[in-house]
Amino acid sequence: MHYQHDHLENDPHYKGLIVNEGVSDVPTINPYRKPKRKRKHLSVEEYVQGILNQELSVLSQAVTLVESALPEHQKIAQQVIEKCLPYSGNSMRIGITGVPGAGKSTFIEALGMYLIHEGRKLAVLAIDPSSERTKGSILGDKTRMEELSVAKNAFIRPSPSAGSLGGVARKTRESIILCEAAGFDTIFVETVGVGQSETAVHSMVDFFLLIQLAGTGDELQGIKRGIMEMADGIAVNKCDGNNIEKSKLARRQFKNALHLFPLGKSGWSPDVVTCSAIEKNGISDVWEMITRFESFVKENGYFELHRNQQSKYWMYESINESLKADFYHNEDIIQLLRQLEDQVLHKEISSFMAAKKAVDTFRLL
Amino acid sequence: MHYQHDHLENDPHYKGLIVNEGVSDVPTINPYRKPKRKRKHLSVEEYVQGILNQELSVLSQAVTLVESALPEHQKIAQQVIEKCLPYSGNSMRIGITGVPGAGKSTFIEALGMYLIHEGRKLAVLAIDPSSERTKGSILGDKTRMEELSVAKNAFIRPSPSAGSLGGVARKTRESIILCEAAGFDTIFVETVGVGQSETAVHSMVDFFLLIQLAGTGDELQGIKRGIMEMADGIAVNKCDGNNIEKSKLARRQFKNALHLFPLGKSGWSPDVVTCSAIEKNGISDVWEMITRFESFVKENGYFELHRNQQSKYWMYESINESLKADFYHNEDIIQLLRQLEDQVLHKEISSFMAAKKAVDTFRLL
Repeated sequence: MHYQHDHLENDPHYKGLIVNEGVSDVPTINPYRKPKRKRKHLSVEEYVQGILNQELSVLSQAVTLVESALPEHQKIAQQVIEKCLPYSGNSMRIGITGVPGAGKSTFIEALGMYLIHEGRKLAVLAIDPSSERTKGSILGDKTRMEELSVAKNAFIRPSPSAGSLGGVARKTRESIILCEAAGFDTIFVETVGVGQSETAVHSMVDFFLLIQLAGTGDELQGIKRGIMEMADGIAVNKCDGNNIEKSKLARRQFKNALHLFPLGKSGWSPDVVTCSAIEKNGISDVWEMITRFESFVKENGYFELHRNQQSKYWMYESINESLKADFYHNEDIIQLLRQLEDQVLHKEISSFMAAKKAVDTFRLL
Repeated sequence: MHYQHDHLENDPHYKGLIVNEGVSDVPTINPYRKPKRKRKHLSVEEYVQGILNQELSVLSQAVTLVESALPEHQKIAQQVIEKCLPYSGNSMRIGITGVPGAGKSTFIEALGMYLIHEGRKLAVLAIDPSSERTKGSILGDKTRMEELSVAKNAFIRPSPSAGSLGGVARKTRESIILCEAAGFDTIFVETVGVGQSETAVHSMVDFFLLIQLAGTGDELQGIKRGIMEMADGIAVNKCDGNNIEKSKLARRQFKNALHLFPLGKSGWSPDVVTCSAIEKNGISDVWEMITRFESFVKENGYFELHRNQQSKYWMYESINESLKADFYHNEDIIQLLRQLEDQVLHKEISSFMAAKKAVDTFRLL
């Protein structure tokens, strides 16, 4: 596994390659620390070959490159992605969300280890625009995935460092391509069920799993409205000890609630299962639900259709992001918008007239 | 009332003004038809004065101007809106949605007449980007609102003619401002619960009402996912005859389902009531729910906050629309995008590289 870059040299997959780690190197002042060996830059070809040879150290460095903000890194990263693209796509991509406290890390550890034992290769990525790697984000506390973080066929990466949601999501989506080219057949994309990240994750995964808890009141307040309707399946976690009856009741309640929603375009009727990640109960039921979904949508053609829609979505999303960036990063526009917002709130000008003024100004710049 | 422009001359509110009706005039070839009187253009001042004097014929013409695609009409319309803006805002804006068959027209007729008798002034607008006025859109079949369409304090307008959702929604939002300046204290914005229009409506109303029917299966399939979570309240309609028990059960089911969702930012817990629009039962309960909501959000400050957010939303929405229009209406870009989409779908190029190519090309144009 490749949890942190410092572990590279101890990694069994490390094949003596000396690679540049990009921007995430943290300067060290520890005098007792073994001096780092000077790292050579890999060429685009070397990255691609390393990834296709399933060398995890190279994959790890390529992901670091994808996450780098430096233009020269981005240039290489984009070329690597283009060359990996034909080898990508051959995986089941699963989005996993749930409020903090739902036991997501333990769940991922349990389902992840189950899949590794089933012979699958698992990459765990994350989207959390608010996280900073140093602060320990969702996946930052590796003690919570003790087994998975040292498992052979697992690759775990925390969320890319803080940035705009669009930027962070884009990096995660690009990393999926690299992981797939490196032979990973199962991708988890984790996020916290409290923000906009879910929409971004939803637009890059095949199956969207919501981890819930028993209880219908305050426990659910943290989940953002709309997320439940995105779910292809719900796992009611912590179905153990005193909680078993409550969890089974919750399962029925969620099933009834989902029943009130119309089917999504996939034609799939979302299912609800109970499990206990900590006792490793019901984990196979979760996976059975996901594989049942997979067969269903591959059969009816939705799987392919959805992936194509996602590709187009990301193209248009990126275009719109770029167009907006040109406008909203302009210093004159930033100042003008501040004034216009104020005028709109005081009803001195309509929203539409304000917009017209801003865009007209921009065109003359 | 002002249902169709042809009725202007028969309208009790018509005060001899001869106004230009804009682009919606349909040429007639009926030789028996009385020739139309030549209409004089109103000035911006005349429009504004007429609206503030609550002359419905002037309001009607101003709305037609807002809906016109002609630049010279738009120029006048925008000035009229700016001048009406300080007199707007003093109303309760209610979005109403539900699948075809839920009985929306009958419901609007019943609730509308109830409000008229309560001394309120009601404007009914609509958003349906797919409609064309001549084809008879949601509000096109006026026989479905027999009483309301001839009531004194009611103003009914069908959805603006077909166009982009953004365009149609913008026109409806602008019309709300004019209606409020003309003294209407209650605004209904109707839409069909099957498309994206709900999000647009949601962003211009204070209360979002979903009309549902008893039954948890096929009847609901037509409602788009996500709409239920937008609702501030649900009215289970057609609670009459054999359907009473089923409707009461449906009410409990919806209440339980809504209970599983977290509260929205308003802090309001969405309520569910039953009614029969056709038998005029429970209509006051619906209105009681809406006024209870109104007090609640005016008390906690959400009403004002939400309106301010909506104003800002429309400003940024309009800016983004304009920026996109410049790009996507460009002939070279249209051609290029067709090629790029194809390459993306065949995995010859990543979504991000495709986006970069398109934007780079646009910058050089």
